[in-house]
Amino acid sequence: MKGMVYLVGAGPGDPDLITLKAVQALGLASVVLVDDLVNPAILAHCPQARVIHVGKRGGCESTSQHFINRTMISLAELGQVVVRLKGGDPFLFGRGGEEVLALKAAGIAYQVVSGVTSGIAVPASLGIPVTHRTYTHGVTFVTGHTQDGHQPNWQALVATQTTLVIYMGMKHLAEIVRHLLAAGMDKGMPCIAIQHGTLQTERHVSASLAHLPLAVKQERLASPAIIVIGEVVSLANSERLLDELEIAA
Amino acid sequence: MKGMVYLVGAGPGDPDLITLKAVQALGLASVVLVDDLVNPAILAHCPQARVIHVGKRGGCESTSQHFINRTMISLAELGQVVVRLKGGDPFLFGRGGEEVLALKAAGIAYQVVSGVTSGIAVPASLGIPVTHRTYTHGVTFVTGHTQDGHQPNWQALVATQTTLVIYMGMKHLAEIVRHLLAAGMDKGMPCIAIQHGTLQTERHVSASLAHLPLAVKQERLASPAIIVIGEVVSLANSERLLDELEIAA
Repeated sequence: MKGMVYLVGAGPGDPDLITLKAVQALGLASVVLVDDLVNPAILAHCPQARVIHVGKRGGCESTSQHFINRTMISLAELGQVVVRLKGGDPFLFGRGGEEVLALKAAGIAYQVVSGVTSGIAVPASLGIPVTHRTYTHGVTFVTGHTQDGHQPNWQALVATQTTLVIYMGMKHLAEIVRHLLAAGMDKGMPCIAIQHGTLQTERHVSASLAHLPLAVKQERLASPAIIVIGEVVSLANSERLLDELEIAA
Repeated sequence: MKGMVYLVGAGPGDPDLITLKAVQALGLASVVLVDDLVNPAILAHCPQARVIHVGKRGGCESTSQHFINRTMISLAELGQVVVRLKGGDPFLFGRGGEEVLALKAAGIAYQVVSGVTSGIAVPASLGIPVTHRTYTHGVTFVTGHTQDGHQPNWQALVATQTTLVIYMGMKHLAEIVRHLLAAGMDKGMPCIAIQHGTLQTERHVSASLAHLPLAVKQERLASPAIIVIGEVVSLANSERLLDELEIAA
């Protein structure tokens, strides 16, 4: 008997924002490897499974990607049905691509179950559409924190005039804002940082671009958070109509 | 008794890629206003509801946004629970932002139920992660077809070096490719166009950037389709490991 691996997106936090397919996969699982960003309430769909936490907890180091890959492969080779449960979507900054390559190399059968990504659903929970015809033709999702220390091309990102949604951007927020201002982005551009989006513990800070780092610091907002930068942020929980909007600089 | 409106994402096509929250909203609905891009199988979750199709069908003109807004508002004012069911996610090129503004202006209670977006899930169904640390720091979602005829800044989009995911890009594909080549994108950049992604009727064409328009024409691929442009496309259904990848120019 040969096992297999499901790479499953758990969605942004709200346990009802997972898919039927994710619930089905969890119901089949004998083992679930779960990230910290996943709401524990979601594990109610797999009472039969052994749950292994593979994120940072209690001050421990994060489990290495190599260990996660080896564990998935070993369990599948033993005939286990493994669910690799990730926050958001497994293929948007979820390292799902890397895990799939490792599974392929080991000849393990796998299936990807896409999830609702935090970068869309978290702003949506505050009334912010990441795109809106009046404001922008698109949206860009980038990481603010990269392993190699390499920066995204902020100059080009500003020039696209797309909404910017930044994952893992809190640690380097001041630096990111400096880059965006240097690239010519309006210092009054509406921004929001949202911690624990879609959960009851949700907190957020909205400010103009120039004021965002200080505002985040004053409110002691922390990771994990989603940062949204763009005119669409002005739609957040606003009772005002489009033509009444005035963005404070 | 006051009605309300749920703006619900139906996901990319596969009926199991909707959320538990979407199913709950459909179960509460007395009326469902549904777009054409939504898989009819999803309506099995609302047998009690009256279903109104508001997309292009049988050669008819697309229902105007104004009519959709007025219908939602009138029904909610009559005390109906309205679900506005959209393909993918309601806040990513879904005009959900516009519908929310209309509902707010009319004083109608509403809730947004985020969905799995086609731009991530459709490439994922062919093994393509829209981001991968080795290739890119991000992904940009843009529309290839805009009401005002205004073009995205292709030059800047190329400079970002993010994966490009283009919605509604089939009609102007040749023009988009010309812009990307003029902006300096490698003519050998891996591309894929995917029609009816995540469904059994799925068809796709992969080609280098320069060859994509001809390949799409030869295979008679049509709308609705998702176009993905970037190195990550080389991961599609590939059995090869990272270090073995060679992109044909």
